[in-house]
Amino acid sequence: MRWWLYRLAAAAAFLAAALALRSPAPLRFASGGRFKVALFADLHYGENAWTDWGPAQDAASDHVMATVLDADKPDFVVYLGDLVTANNVPIPNATLYWDRAISHSRRRGVPWSTVFGNHDDMPFEWPPEWFSPAGIPPVHCLSAAAMQTSGNRTFQIPLNSVLDQSAGSSVCAVNVSGCSFRGTPRIELMKTELNRDGADGLSRSSVGPQELWPGVSNYVLQVLSHEKQQDPALLMYFLDSGGGSYPEVISSAQVRWFGNQSQSLNPDGRIPELIFWHIPSTAYVKVAPKSKTEICKPCVGSLNEEDVAPQEAEWGMMDALAKRSSVKAIFVGHNHGLDWCCPYEKLWLCFARHTGHGGYGDWPRGARIVEIAEKPFSVHSWIRMENGSTHSHITLS
Amino acid sequence: MRWWLYRLAAAAAFLAAALALRSPAPLRFASGGRFKVALFADLHYGENAWTDWGPAQDAASDHVMATVLDADKPDFVVYLGDLVTANNVPIPNATLYWDRAISHSRRRGVPWSTVFGNHDDMPFEWPPEWFSPAGIPPVHCLSAAAMQTSGNRTFQIPLNSVLDQSAGSSVCAVNVSGCSFRGTPRIELMKTELNRDGADGLSRSSVGPQELWPGVSNYVLQVLSHEKQQDPALLMYFLDSGGGSYPEVISSAQVRWFGNQSQSLNPDGRIPELIFWHIPSTAYVKVAPKSKTEICKPCVGSLNEEDVAPQEAEWGMMDALAKRSSVKAIFVGHNHGLDWCCPYEKLWLCFARHTGHGGYGDWPRGARIVEIAEKPFSVHSWIRMENGSTHSHITLS
Repeated sequence: MRWWLYRLAAAAAFLAAALALRSPAPLRFASGGRFKVALFADLHYGENAWTDWGPAQDAASDHVMATVLDADKPDFVVYLGDLVTANNVPIPNATLYWDRAISHSRRRGVPWSTVFGNHDDMPFEWPPEWFSPAGIPPVHCLSAAAMQTSGNRTFQIPLNSVLDQSAGSSVCAVNVSGCSFRGTPRIELMKTELNRDGADGLSRSSVGPQELWPGVSNYVLQVLSHEKQQDPALLMYFLDSGGGSYPEVISSAQVRWFGNQSQSLNPDGRIPELIFWHIPSTAYVKVAPKSKTEICKPCVGSLNEEDVAPQEAEWGMMDALAKRSSVKAIFVGHNHGLDWCCPYEKLWLCFARHTGHGGYGDWPRGARIVEIAEKPFSVHSWIRMENGSTHSHITLS
Repeated sequence: MRWWLYRLAAAAAFLAAALALRSPAPLRFASGGRFKVALFADLHYGENAWTDWGPAQDAASDHVMATVLDADKPDFVVYLGDLVTANNVPIPNATLYWDRAISHSRRRGVPWSTVFGNHDDMPFEWPPEWFSPAGIPPVHCLSAAAMQTSGNRTFQIPLNSVLDQSAGSSVCAVNVSGCSFRGTPRIELMKTELNRDGADGLSRSSVGPQELWPGVSNYVLQVLSHEKQQDPALLMYFLDSGGGSYPEVISSAQVRWFGNQSQSLNPDGRIPELIFWHIPSTAYVKVAPKSKTEICKPCVGSLNEEDVAPQEAEWGMMDALAKRSSVKAIFVGHNHGLDWCCPYEKLWLCFARHTGHGGYGDWPRGARIVEIAEKPFSVHSWIRMENGSTHSHITLS
């Protein structure tokens, strides 16, 4: 066994031990028999830190999440991938941007989980213009004071701790020469999230089984019944749909893992199940509304402004899900110009809503809310916009 | 200053100290007043190690270099980029493949230098089929015995030291789960080459000035006169044309560096100059022969089977070179289906010849030879093929 395999094995053992010690409180339906989830998709923190524009986008993303969390007071937050635009982050470690994204839930005491998008685990892409006579630009950073006033919030991870800064100045320069910023691996991002969260913290994320690596965010969460306190009343499956450092795909190994997990946890399909990952499957292409200007029933949504950008291949996950009547819906991000839900066989395929001000597209930002009622079981959903309004209410039944 | 900047500075200081200690013998025209250079371009070691095909290609590449070195007995070897197909190497460290490429010169006592191609410093690209039901394949490795008989040579870095192997077996499996193989940075490849070579070794490579990073292989070599023992009679400039971890470009900063170097070393343009880098500049597109089937004078060559794949931008290097009458020719690799030389203003633009059996294309492999005569100064060139034959003789005057 070579040295790096030893190191890998040692790291895996350390991680397993650290995770075994974690014992966060179980998720549970609230006293009204409801469990409300906010989906924050495509936050894209960390873009163009060497301009004024980038840090301003990040501050605006903070504002969107603050609005949604204050308006809807969710019981749980799902960070649905692309928390960071790692290919735009000229520092060797993107975990501080990742931490800024999840800090909003943490500060409010709302438990959360994360899945990876295709932009979280990417090497830095050197802008071609940095090789022109203009050269590598100095990096402009907001001062701590400016950060505290933007969005009327203070942040646990202000930008001036992410990037070097001359003391007291609002402008700083990062010396990027010589570094090849290769991105922060999924394992490193997730391990850092869990380590910072501590043993009894709010993160419900997981590094997932080693046999599914390089995919990492593969795990199941149980939401316990309000009435029968030990019984799970909802299963939430999180899957890594790839991208960045490896192809945009849900593997055959993940399909087998899902089969084993669902058979073990829910053999008779009595417990309703919801699914979360980042990149739409090819089934989304099949059900997409035909008209770009009007979304007709049974689909519900407000944006259908681009083609679905699906995973590279389909290795059986959709068949595995469609044959389980307990699976009610899949939620994805990735396409910033889509926010609809459409039926596919016996389940619903839903997009979240582009939440971050980073990333392509000028459509107003928001977040999909998913409210699950325990008895009788139902799933209601709507989109909360940055200005506080809601639209696209739907019952996923 | 953040921790990684400290580490970077420490690494740079260490490198500078290590390099300052290197004192390899100067290059010099031989007693006949000649200096013969072999160009090994696009070796592409390390492809598909999990198949029988990949290791067989590497053994065939060994054979090409052995043939050329034995037939032409060059005074110097230029490894003209893409020594390794790093995007195909599922191990965290590609330096052993790099070392295998240069081992052929080392074993024969021939000094060499290396420049980076776009494939040397790339992250591993996970084959999409590894996510299918077939999964991640076991890795097939040649046994040490098989390595020793292939090409009738033993190798200092046999494949079984590059990849894990069950003792005595000719097939082995590498556990790749969990690793995100991010490629081996240029600095690491070059540093390892120089460290292995030692203080008085044969490598004439350099990490180049820090202000030109992320480009690394930027340096000048002087070839001393046979007659006037302290006088340089030829300058060879090596430039990093980018690609892999950053854009395929020669930067404005490199143009300034070339200007300063050439002004300092050769202010009156008395010393003839040759230029080496990997990716053709856009000027190659302008002079390319029009016919795919026939290469007409003044161009000379045997292959014109594809379009030139040039650098992404031109930031002034070609103007800087064209205005110096001391610059006689530029040599590049990158396009496996091109092996011509064509005139451009007062200098020659030449392709090398695809030397490695890795990489795209089925054209027979070979190497461009460049023989420089000191007095009267002349540059003759030809292509030596794997079967020992030669063709495309030309005088670059």
